[in-house]
Amino acid sequence: MLATVIHGAGDIRVEEVPDPELSTGADAIVRVVAACVCGSDLWPYRGVTETTEPHRIGHEFVGVVESVGPEVRTVQPGDFVIAPFYVCDGTCVNCRNGVSTSCLQGGWWGSADRFGGFADGAQGQIVRVPLADGTLAVVPGPVADDEIPGLLTLSDVMGTGHHAAVSAGVSPGDTVVVVGDGAVGLCAVIAAKRLGATTIIAMSRHPRRQELAREFGATHIVEERGEEGIEAVRALTDGIGADRVLECVGTKESMDQALKSTRPGGKVGFVGVPNGGPELPIRQMFSRNVGVNGGVAPVRGYIEELLPDVRAGVIQPGRVFDLELPLTDAAEAYAAMDERRAVKVLLRP
Amino acid sequence: MLATVIHGAGDIRVEEVPDPELSTGADAIVRVVAACVCGSDLWPYRGVTETTEPHRIGHEFVGVVESVGPEVRTVQPGDFVIAPFYVCDGTCVNCRNGVSTSCLQGGWWGSADRFGGFADGAQGQIVRVPLADGTLAVVPGPVADDEIPGLLTLSDVMGTGHHAAVSAGVSPGDTVVVVGDGAVGLCAVIAAKRLGATTIIAMSRHPRRQELAREFGATHIVEERGEEGIEAVRALTDGIGADRVLECVGTKESMDQALKSTRPGGKVGFVGVPNGGPELPIRQMFSRNVGVNGGVAPVRGYIEELLPDVRAGVIQPGRVFDLELPLTDAAEAYAAMDERRAVKVLLRP
Repeated sequence: MLATVIHGAGDIRVEEVPDPELSTGADAIVRVVAACVCGSDLWPYRGVTETTEPHRIGHEFVGVVESVGPEVRTVQPGDFVIAPFYVCDGTCVNCRNGVSTSCLQGGWWGSADRFGGFADGAQGQIVRVPLADGTLAVVPGPVADDEIPGLLTLSDVMGTGHHAAVSAGVSPGDTVVVVGDGAVGLCAVIAAKRLGATTIIAMSRHPRRQELAREFGATHIVEERGEEGIEAVRALTDGIGADRVLECVGTKESMDQALKSTRPGGKVGFVGVPNGGPELPIRQMFSRNVGVNGGVAPVRGYIEELLPDVRAGVIQPGRVFDLELPLTDAAEAYAAMDERRAVKVLLRP
Repeated sequence: MLATVIHGAGDIRVEEVPDPELSTGADAIVRVVAACVCGSDLWPYRGVTETTEPHRIGHEFVGVVESVGPEVRTVQPGDFVIAPFYVCDGTCVNCRNGVSTSCLQGGWWGSADRFGGFADGAQGQIVRVPLADGTLAVVPGPVADDEIPGLLTLSDVMGTGHHAAVSAGVSPGDTVVVVGDGAVGLCAVIAAKRLGATTIIAMSRHPRRQELAREFGATHIVEERGEEGIEAVRALTDGIGADRVLECVGTKESMDQALKSTRPGGKVGFVGVPNGGPELPIRQMFSRNVGVNGGVAPVRGYIEELLPDVRAGVIQPGRVFDLELPLTDAAEAYAAMDERRAVKVLLRP
């Protein structure tokens, strides 16, 4: 089959690799219907994190089950499934606590030698899914083709934006700032509105993303950054800052922006993978009672809650995909996202 | 009148100073009935923070109102009052949001040239209280002498322990770790039990404090620190850590202990003044979804909630005072707390 392999910074290739096979009894084999490129895939692409040897890449996909191991109970061949960006059993104490990203049996796509061997994530044609009962969410059929983008966002970005909002404690009537206008930031706008925020300030200097943010529910756009951005937010929030701030980038600058845009007693919900970011300034948090909550989003647990709204069109996160390419053009998908020509690219194997 | 003055590390003196007088129309003059020494007073006493010139010290007291300015509405001469460890108006947007420590008009005792001049805090005989309506909580009389210690804890330590528990989101059935066995840590045990925690692990290696923690509701004591302490906590918590951890010290080591004792998806509530502590390790928080909330405790807003339980004896935070001295022995009060001979010292002017 074909799968995407990163060879180094800026070097993405689609190559022939062996088809995966059932390994443990708890596996499923899934034929990928759609996959996508994540903002975090851009870190190795940009060389911010080093690629020491060529490896498969990708971790978001939807597909149709081809076969399952003898222990699998909740997933059957023919099922349309959403895979979160990680593997989990759904039964351990951390999964039961709602933190399936810390599953005691689980782990990450692309980790070699776990779950009975290498488990490729996505950006390929076929995936072996370990712990299939815990990992996969079944979408009751039939699934229309125009539903695919929305369903695919539940594998990562919509659930991650939702996690930012939940972690910050967004409640009806809140004033919310969203830092970051990538796919996660835009989904965080959707999530904030869905949870009842009445003022939503999107920080963006990109006209097309601003427009999408407004369509998703943003009531204000702030283009400024740094001290000017903080002043602009305060001017919209009684001079004190927002109740909740959703940090969807992961840099030193974005976290600084988030913390200083939060009112005393407010909360930052953060989901941006901290990359080169600093440690958090505890004295600043202490003196203003600004809490910081969040982390790697346990999106598997959010699928059941969000799926009905996605299928009914109440929320339309699938609109973050503004470019669709065949899998064989994966290199162009990365380039388009890297150069911000696309918010998020959908790949069809 | 007499008041306590710090001249430098280890140098506490009780000196004759001018009586305070009404300055702004919103002031009250209060005769101190009892004051106390705070853990944070020990930082300058120990030379951890520098004392560049002699200054008055103290910020927790209860007393009886002697006179009020013409604008004061809710406080009258003869009222028994509790003063929080800061000054606030009770009406600004931050006060209305429950964060009176960030009052737009307020500030700290001992700050020169605010509120119409210098406002001495406590550890003295008479105090001028600016913004009296917002700052002071009236205790309906009569007040019995044996109620004084309990009421005095509402000026700081009981409200601060409560803030740790509230910030961490302690809920019925939770497993809670309390890091710190000072007066705030012991009050945090009280608060955790009051909010319904069923397992409360107090970290302490001091026999008398362990005993008090158990009497306040601790179900387990962990004496170990560092990695051994974390292992001991995990052994009591299904191997994953506690739902909520209350950090009541403020050092690098105590915050590290707190973060690593929290289960994935759990929360740290922190109230220890960060002093020499590090910045927070954001990647560790991110990967385990451990939130950090808290800060300088808005205790003024908690007095109304906690007062009935204190007066009814449902909670007995006044027991943290294990030494009572006349104001003139303030130097001995500091020494006793510094050497951990006393948990907390009550001073009678």
